[in-house]
Amino acid sequence: MDVNADDFFKAAMLDKPRDTEKSKVGSNVTLINVMQIPGLNTLGISIARIDYAPLGENPPHTHPRATEILTVLEGTLYVGFVTSNQANRENKLFSKVLNKGDVFVFPQGLIHFQFNPNPHVPAVAIAALSSQNPGAITIANAVFGSKPAISDDVLAKAFQVEKGTIDWLQAQFWENNHY
Amino acid sequence: MDVNADDFFKAAMLDKPRDTEKSKVGSNVTLINVMQIPGLNTLGISIARIDYAPLGENPPHTHPRATEILTVLEGTLYVGFVTSNQANRENKLFSKVLNKGDVFVFPQGLIHFQFNPNPHVPAVAIAALSSQNPGAITIANAVFGSKPAISDDVLAKAFQVEKGTIDWLQAQFWENNHY
Amino acid sequence: MDVNADDFFKAAMLDKPRDTEKSKVGSNVTLINVMQIPGLNTLGISIARIDYAPLGENPPHTHPRATEILTVLEGTLYVGFVTSNQANRENKLFSKVLNKGDVFVFPQGLIHFQFNPNPHVPAVAIAALSSQNPGAITIANAVFGSKPAISDDVLAKAFQVEKGTIDWLQAQFWENNHY
Amino acid sequence: MDVNADDFFKAAMLDKPRDTEKSKVGSNVTLINVMQIPGLNTLGISIARIDYAPLGENPPHTHPRATEILTVLEGTLYVGFVTSNQANRENKLFSKVLNKGDVFVFPQGLIHFQFNPNPHVPAVAIAALSSQNPGAITIANAVFGSKPAISDDVLAKAFQVEKGTIDWLQAQFWENNHY
Amino acid sequence: MDVNADDFFKAAMLDKPRDTEKSKVGSNVTLINVMQIPGLNTLGISIARIDYAPLGENPPHTHPRATEILTVLEGTLYVGFVTSNQANRENKLFSKVLNKGDVFVFPQGLIHFQFNPNPHVPAVAIAALSSQNPGAITIANAVFGSKPAISDDVLAKAFQVEKGTIDWLQAQFWENNHY
Amino acid sequence: MDVNADDFFKAAMLDKPRDTEKSKVGSNVTLINVMQIPGLNTLGISIARIDYAPLGENPPHTHPRATEILTVLEGTLYVGFVTSNQANRENKLFSKVLNKGDVFVFPQGLIHFQFNPNPHVPAVAIAALSSQNPGAITIANAVFGSKPAISDDVLAKAFQVEKGTIDWLQAQFWENNHY
Repeated sequence: MDVNADDFFKAAMLDKPRDTEKSKVGSNVTLINVMQIPGLNTLGISIARIDYAPLGENPPHTHPRATEILTVLEGTLYVGFVTSNQANRENKLFSKVLNKGDVFVFPQGLIHFQFNPNPHVPAVAIAALSSQNPGAITIANAVFGSKPAISDDVLAKAFQVEKGTIDWLQAQFWENNHY
Repeated sequence: MDVNADDFFKAAMLDKPRDTEKSKVGSNVTLINVMQIPGLNTLGISIARIDYAPLGENPPHTHPRATEILTVLEGTLYVGFVTSNQANRENKLFSKVLNKGDVFVFPQGLIHFQFNPNPHVPAVAIAALSSQNPGAITIANAVFGSKPAISDDVLAKAFQVEKGTIDWLQAQFWENNHY
Repeated sequence: MDVNADDFFKAAMLDKPRDTEKSKVGSNVTLINVMQIPGLNTLGISIARIDYAPLGENPPHTHPRATEILTVLEGTLYVGFVTSNQANRENKLFSKVLNKGDVFVFPQGLIHFQFNPNPHVPAVAIAALSSQNPGAITIANAVFGSKPAISDDVLAKAFQVEKGTIDWLQAQFWENNHY
Repeated sequence: MDVNADDFFKAAMLDKPRDTEKSKVGSNVTLINVMQIPGLNTLGISIARIDYAPLGENPPHTHPRATEILTVLEGTLYVGFVTSNQANRENKLFSKVLNKGDVFVFPQGLIHFQFNPNPHVPAVAIAALSSQNPGAITIANAVFGSKPAISDDVLAKAFQVEKGTIDWLQAQFWENNHY
Repeated sequence: MDVNADDFFKAAMLDKPRDTEKSKVGSNVTLINVMQIPGLNTLGISIARIDYAPLGENPPHTHPRATEILTVLEGTLYVGFVTSNQANRENKLFSKVLNKGDVFVFPQGLIHFQFNPNPHVPAVAIAALSSQNPGAITIANAVFGSKPAISDDVLAKAFQVEKGTIDWLQAQFWENNHY
Repeated sequence: MDVNADDFFKAAMLDKPRDTEKSKVGSNVTLINVMQIPGLNTLGISIARIDYAPLGENPPHTHPRATEILTVLEGTLYVGFVTSNQANRENKLFSKVLNKGDVFVFPQGLIHFQFNPNPHVPAVAIAALSSQNPGAITIANAVFGSKPAISDDVLAKAFQVEKGTIDWLQAQFWENNHY
């Protein structure tokens, strides 16, 4: 096996805006991890460009194996993460409005999001993650859009609503996510 | 500082049924971690008893810092976890009905749940977690019940519903969770 | 390779009493690790049921790669571990009598044991270990029953007895351990 | 101690060009690590903006505790790292010319550099490092500019030159680096 | 706090023979770890000189937190380690006679020993351990000489002998180990 | 695959002086790592004998994946390491003269060296490294002798000299290093 510089390189075009129109939530994540750069194997890092349409968002999600650090290249982002259960089952939201050049950290495994509050101007961020393969779990997709579906008995009790509401939320999800 | 056997011990009464009636979801988790047993410091493990009322559940949640292995002591559990985003953003549900004596694993950081499908008989499980302080993030609480609330703009887009629906879901949550 | 829920599951029958009669020490360890559940790979945890006959024991042993946390399901256990060499080569015994529902921790690599002091009633424990493959070294077996045997010169000096005593101890061991 | 969102935030102005004129090598590294963002503690990541003057460079250096992943925001960079000693003490240079949007990885502990080959246009990169405190050892500074100096006996033999040459190189270094 | 070269240094006199006459087993271990060299903190290594009298030994012991690699400086050593329990509870002895300049590895947590088989000539080894604080558990001391003693009920069953034999073994141990 | 004692053993002849005459810097490193002892796999340690001719040296180098601990067997060594960039880009040299039996630590990833200041007597050291495969990067070789060469534009600016000086240094290196 002949390793060379190309194993540590990707012409990733992270400078190019990505299409956010096909996304129902108005965002597009371009992740460069060990699948794209085999030289990252065992090295514990990856990088991403994230594009946000006006009012677009990277919806609440977690990375099971990585902390994320992010800086804003263009536009404005309302970002936040929610802490683990505390005493009395309280979960705190830590949020911030980020402008160009600001840096924010989303600790490993916590639910977090980024939202572009501007109705006219897109936003762009560069994020780095502390794993060669961080994984991502988009909460709405995992909870209401898994295959097969989680039983509506489970979800109705979890969200304290009727099963019919869950069925409707699942239907909404699938109707709007025919990728 | 005089360390002794009591630093590695807790009279945790894990044999005693816990009250599941105060819980809106019909479950009660008794976690013994480094807060209860200081000798666990740096040792990377903790243990829990989980009680489930008839039709009760440990609702969808993640542990940001631990894998969980669980065995059923009493009753029956419908359990599952959802995989990370795959190609085409697909999330698979891996689920199973567990009987007494069965063992199941929930990998680190993935959304998982346990549900007691029996309307008459409670269930009990012992779970172990690969961290002295695994953390827990109950999805519904973190998403619809954080303090302060996540903006309904963010959640409406994430769940592909109207903002009014989000406001109603948040209100439902708070109405039913006055701990 | 098609991974599915069965890779994270084992019908381990941990609720069923194990036979402790074939064991010379009156105990039976049922360990569920990565050999039984391939999905445990890289996840750093395993679980065990331990059955103790009246006056039975899990004899002094170590786990080279794991800390153990244990809770008593049935009966009573006298448990302990011995600390590393301290100043003056002193080794301290940290011991405790555990009743149903109590929790105890055995730190990684330390010699520990559990003994059922009740001459009439069996005992049962659930233990979890912080490795997918913790390993176990039963001291008596490793020291007096290895294949081939450790030279009696080595053991006589270690235990400060005549070589004849070591030969007799080794013979005892083999006579009583024809598994 | 009251942790809040500001512990995970830094108004780092990573969008603003930095002054590269005071630097003898024509570059300026703005590193945002655990010193600037206390919430990064134990989380294993940091981020940097690097500005390069025309013909400026981030000279050969290593990070003792981190891998680096880098993307070019503006301009062009000639980058490379040198592998560990192989058979016959051979060290290979893995190098590449990077354009805007390209991504390159510098594995942990290896000597690497970035050079802006354009005599007229500056360059800018965003880099992420797999440590909350990666450290940096600029080779020329550490070898010829340490305080106190490494003995010229040692360096003359290492670089296979006369001691006078080493003394002259050290003098050059200090003359040009009166920060 | 002013760190300097002395924090990484110890005038350990590892070239000087140690007294092996006060030891009942005819050996003397001089371990240089983080207690002697504070700069070792977090760096995961330590070093030792071991002196063996003629027919002396470093008796069966484990290091709960380290692998050991050893080379013989003077004399001959019969060394070995015993593997973890395998199928059928079998433990294999891996042993070897080492001459000057040979290297041998004792994996983390396994019971191992070194014995000088020569009745006339001492032996010396240098060993390195993969922890700043490896710990050591001498089996005979921990099992028969802990304070307080492990119950003879436990030990009699573990070694498959009468309680009187255990009492006698413990008495032997204490009579010969009045350090 | 049948593992046995030979997988943990190497007749490495670390007691035998190595030839230092073929080396331009007057030293010879005999490293015993996982390539020589397959049983070291995953165990995180290796060992080396280093021979130094009179006035010979182990020139400035780093180990990207290991801390080194060293003791002097014969002769005298002037040793040192240089700290990471501090405020004001200052790098401190921590150095010491070591005599027989002394111990010194070189932290992971830092540039370090050993030099035998005695013009008549050779020196010998045993070193251990906290990795099964620590790697080594000899600074002069990597900077002035890589294949292909690092551009003289890059090196001239890094060392603050003319390109002609760099070309001459590279030529010196190759003339004197036709291994």
